[in-house]
Amino acid sequence: MNGAESLVRTLIQGGVEVCFANPGTSEMHFVGALDRVEGMRCVLGLFEGVCSGAADGYYRMTDKPASTLLHLGPGLANAAANLHNAKKAGSGIVNIVGEHALYHIKYDTPLTADIEGIARPFSHWVKTSPTSKTVAGDGALAIQAARVAPGQISTLILPADTAWGEADGVAETPATPAPAGPTHDEVVAAAKALMHGKSAMLFLGGRALRARGLELAGKISAKTGCTVQAAGGTARIERGAGRVPVLRLHFVVETAQAQLKGTEHMVLVATKPPAAFFAYPGKPSVLTPEGCTVTTLCPVEGDPLASLEALAAELGALNEKPSGIAQPSRPDKPIGKFTLEGLGQALGATMPEGAIVVDESVTTGRGFFPYSVGAPPHDWLNNMGGSIGFGGPVAVGAAVACPNRKVICMIGDGSAMYTIQSLWTMARENLDVCVMIFSNRSYKILYSQLADVGAAQPGPRAIDMLTLDRPTIDFATMSKSLGVPGGQAHDLEELTKQLSFAMSTKGPYLIDVVM
Amino acid sequence: MNGAESLVRTLIQGGVEVCFANPGTSEMHFVGALDRVEGMRCVLGLFEGVCSGAADGYYRMTDKPASTLLHLGPGLANAAANLHNAKKAGSGIVNIVGEHALYHIKYDTPLTADIEGIARPFSHWVKTSPTSKTVAGDGALAIQAARVAPGQISTLILPADTAWGEADGVAETPATPAPAGPTHDEVVAAAKALMHGKSAMLFLGGRALRARGLELAGKISAKTGCTVQAAGGTARIERGAGRVPVLRLHFVVETAQAQLKGTEHMVLVATKPPAAFFAYPGKPSVLTPEGCTVTTLCPVEGDPLASLEALAAELGALNEKPSGIAQPSRPDKPIGKFTLEGLGQALGATMPEGAIVVDESVTTGRGFFPYSVGAPPHDWLNNMGGSIGFGGPVAVGAAVACPNRKVICMIGDGSAMYTIQSLWTMARENLDVCVMIFSNRSYKILYSQLADVGAAQPGPRAIDMLTLDRPTIDFATMSKSLGVPGGQAHDLEELTKQLSFAMSTKGPYLIDVVM
Repeated sequence: MNGAESLVRTLIQGGVEVCFANPGTSEMHFVGALDRVEGMRCVLGLFEGVCSGAADGYYRMTDKPASTLLHLGPGLANAAANLHNAKKAGSGIVNIVGEHALYHIKYDTPLTADIEGIARPFSHWVKTSPTSKTVAGDGALAIQAARVAPGQISTLILPADTAWGEADGVAETPATPAPAGPTHDEVVAAAKALMHGKSAMLFLGGRALRARGLELAGKISAKTGCTVQAAGGTARIERGAGRVPVLRLHFVVETAQAQLKGTEHMVLVATKPPAAFFAYPGKPSVLTPEGCTVTTLCPVEGDPLASLEALAAELGALNEKPSGIAQPSRPDKPIGKFTLEGLGQALGATMPEGAIVVDESVTTGRGFFPYSVGAPPHDWLNNMGGSIGFGGPVAVGAAVACPNRKVICMIGDGSAMYTIQSLWTMARENLDVCVMIFSNRSYKILYSQLADVGAAQPGPRAIDMLTLDRPTIDFATMSKSLGVPGGQAHDLEELTKQLSFAMSTKGPYLIDVVM
Repeated sequence: MNGAESLVRTLIQGGVEVCFANPGTSEMHFVGALDRVEGMRCVLGLFEGVCSGAADGYYRMTDKPASTLLHLGPGLANAAANLHNAKKAGSGIVNIVGEHALYHIKYDTPLTADIEGIARPFSHWVKTSPTSKTVAGDGALAIQAARVAPGQISTLILPADTAWGEADGVAETPATPAPAGPTHDEVVAAAKALMHGKSAMLFLGGRALRARGLELAGKISAKTGCTVQAAGGTARIERGAGRVPVLRLHFVVETAQAQLKGTEHMVLVATKPPAAFFAYPGKPSVLTPEGCTVTTLCPVEGDPLASLEALAAELGALNEKPSGIAQPSRPDKPIGKFTLEGLGQALGATMPEGAIVVDESVTTGRGFFPYSVGAPPHDWLNNMGGSIGFGGPVAVGAAVACPNRKVICMIGDGSAMYTIQSLWTMARENLDVCVMIFSNRSYKILYSQLADVGAAQPGPRAIDMLTLDRPTIDFATMSKSLGVPGGQAHDLEELTKQLSFAMSTKGPYLIDVVM
């Protein structure tokens, strides 16, 4: 058994059963091993950002790391933006990067680069395995590190000679220590902070936003009168009818401040204190009202469900009926010209039970939540790293993770062009994804941002940097060229008709929402 | 004048007149300044790899750095693969990356990342400017560093508050020290090494491959009988009728060894000793024959033209007639089914005078050189970093640099999908680029690489990682969706007809060569 095969077998034995790959020469032995070993699904991406984003989406839906397979430094660099997003979201990934044979590196040939240096800003754990006999053991350590709560990026660098040399066998993956729950003092402090009625807020992130976490928050709110708020960046919210709804903290500073207004006591669960996405002249970075006390019940790397259970128990809230449970209800199918409200209604009116909404709608979708609050139970995934090009790849990974659920992927046109290659993987794997592109033909968010940073009224040259209308991009045609059927929608009626069609069939479909 | 404006003015005054940009919030003041300052052409890319590759192509054709404008760490990461290629090619770039306001970084918001850490593996010079008063001076230093021979990557990180704060004015760009010429001893040593007739070889890279460098090499060859060979990776070769032709060192180890066979004395000019692109079990990394002496006349960062002039003078060769000057000649327009030979002939038969060939044809185009050796004078640009996704972006930059010349961009289908967004910029700027996609529907190079690394006969799962035929990609349709007209060619007659059409019109055109 060579080193590559020992690694593939170690991954499978360690529960890593999917590999999102774009291999090259130095990864050929890994690829060769796939035919000798059962149990690894290898999914090809035409660009490495598709692979890393897919691994992110897969983790969010399974709580299990997938692996990537990337070609040397530049392949890793291409994956890095979506690794950044995954890192910020707490998604675990076993990121495998080929390297030249170690004796070859000194010749500084075209693909030679400082792979560890490239990996470090995007990884929690980085190692170059030195020999074919260490690859399996290092692979096991990489899996262990990827599983550290809430999930970490492990980058294992695999020199070609360690792949083709003889291995010692398969390695056992060591257990990852469970995340720590809160101390009794922490629970008491949080309980005390929440005893202030509606001037107190439970501020939730991470896995606190799964159904059970929100149910516990609803019980605590019923008992104490505190408000419940989700952070701005959320990896996955379980929502819809029968669940306790939350709103995400808004991107715009003033709107976020309004959401937090009156909060004197904030209790954090699996998130950090709220801060502005960007700095703006004359606006604060810290979004909590002045004088607000902030108590951490559970840090980002803690155990939010155990923390909320302990808090509810401390407050005697475990048997409360959660406040605010969403009742089943759907908006009517909207008609007429596109409005942001209408788009939210179209989604809420058509999404099926178990849908996974991957939301990279940027400016368009910020107000969509109310229209699907009573829709059938579903998951909603947002970008936590701010790097665009997130939506398509994450939808690929969510669809691979959950083949029996419909993935609805909403992307702004500017973002969509970053990783448009993801459509091809959806076609190749026949993934059940409905992609909606919101074609406003601009980086629309930047118009408000120009004003917010205090840049002058944009002139023609500045506007030229914000517009995507010269030429316009025909996403439905592009989609077909990549094997994904699709159409354009010019008003809400066309959109709901196409959404209904997409929801009633299996396989990828793209709707270009021409706004 | 704010910091951003002081930087834009400093760039223009320092001769940096083009900015390949994909800005975001933190770069809005730079964008805003474009409307107040004349002299900076700002070209939008839909993905940062287009911007960095375009800056590479621009430098190769002008010997002047362009700037990029990138959005924080992930924007830089997206640009990194083509920065890697540019760095390996010795292209100078002033790479400008936005950053959060310095006081905001500690809040670790979504886009916060270690930007300097990301930049370092891809840059020769990295600096975060600390205040709005230092931005202009740091910009001038970045230009100076980018101009160090043969060209360097400078990364200037621009925190948002340094962009919006008050500046002191424009900074003067300090002169960059000229590259060193050879010492007399070095010239004598090289001359002595070449006195061995055809067992001696002049091995050329960098600017030694411009017309004058090759002419000098031809004179030296005429005088001494030495052979002349280009390195495997070449940034730009000036070739065609009236010039001294060279072959590039082949990618395949055995073929490269055959090219170097019999060489007992090698003199290096602006390149390193030849080494294999990858390591393979049982094959050498070093490609020079055993016992071959290697003499460096001019290192990569030296002055190849001054070195060759001095060498020719030392050998008394300045008045020789260069050996092997290419006579004007063209192949006939080929007909029939696609063959690699026929593709090379189609190109040689149709390329106009002054064409700039950007070659990312990977396996398809390796043998094209003989068919255009007597074509009208033209430039030929190759990838020196090995990271695919090079062709389209570099073609964008070459076309911006040379608006009166036809750019012919040859890309393998696998490579094309990495930076397909470049087509949109070609349409937007109406760049005079003819793109040929060689659609063999596979990462074809990897078939031979599997064998070369000694991986077993590929089974179905391995082959699945090498094929692009499920679904096939319709590049002509995709091209139209991005605003670039195009068509498919199914045989050599269709290809030459479309090539002739593309050569006779201005503006972008794509030919999908369905092999």
